[in-house]
Amino acid sequence: MLTMQPIGIVHSPYVDTAQIPKGLGAVHQAEGVLELHPEFEAGLTDIEAFSHLYILWVFDRASGCELIGTPPCDNRPHGVFATRSPRRPNPIGLTVDALLRRDGCNLHVRGVDMLDGTPILDIKPYLSSVPAAELRRRWRAEAEARQKS
Amino acid sequence: MLTMQPIGIVHSPYVDTAQIPKGLGAVHQAEGVLELHPEFEAGLTDIEAFSHLYILWVFDRASGCELIGTPPCDNRPHGVFATRSPRRPNPIGLTVDALLRRDGCNLHVRGVDMLDGTPILDIKPYLSSVPAAELRRRWRAEAEARQKS
Repeated sequence: MLTMQPIGIVHSPYVDTAQIPKGLGAVHQAEGVLELHPEFEAGLTDIEAFSHLYILWVFDRASGCELIGTPPCDNRPHGVFATRSPRRPNPIGLTVDALLRRDGCNLHVRGVDMLDGTPILDIKPYLSSVPAAELRRRWRAEAEARQKS
Repeated sequence: MLTMQPIGIVHSPYVDTAQIPKGLGAVHQAEGVLELHPEFEAGLTDIEAFSHLYILWVFDRASGCELIGTPPCDNRPHGVFATRSPRRPNPIGLTVDALLRRDGCNLHVRGVDMLDGTPILDIKPYLSSVPAAELRRRWRAEAEARQKS
């Protein structure tokens, strides 16, 4: 067992999961603020150099774990590790946010898909991406095709 | 405080951090196996649909936290949240691996940069990427330019 501590919290326009865009074609353009606890501010040095950040956070309002479930973007069940379901063995969320500006301990970001008050575990620079030509995401693509037909 | 449990372990060719390619231009082509504990196998259903996966894991052999440090790819210090340093407040690592094949509880992957025996916390599908034209990663780019000149 490993113990983690929140390093800050998310200020988001979303107070209920029903407000968060989900499923195929969901676009996350909401702006929010990642507020770090002051003792971690030094760790933000030079973060403005990056346009995009990985945010690791806690699904603190999800309960339990479901190894097989049906995501909002499909009508077929999939394994939890093939989805972004909050009901995971370790309830860690991962979001890529665009960094708009920094104000001390506060990172103003776009692309928030967390609830207001969500605990933050880590922030990392988004360094690279897999070339589109090499990317395969089959059941998502099939679900998209079914939805369009 | 939050408690996390490993869901499996990484089988990697690397037994010492000195063996892992680091710094500018590091290419991770090493193959390895992500072995999930059998009780989580159902969660892998349909994972073969994805070409790439996010792996969340624990820097279990890193000690302590350093808010400002000099990464192997630069000669200037940066905040920990602007680097991939293992000495983080919450020692969670994040890797994008290509999925080669699945064999029961075992995911054969390429792109391993973890030590052999590393505990795995979560696996998620790699769904999208930030378009290259929108991506900025300044201190990394500057360090690359300095190294070339």
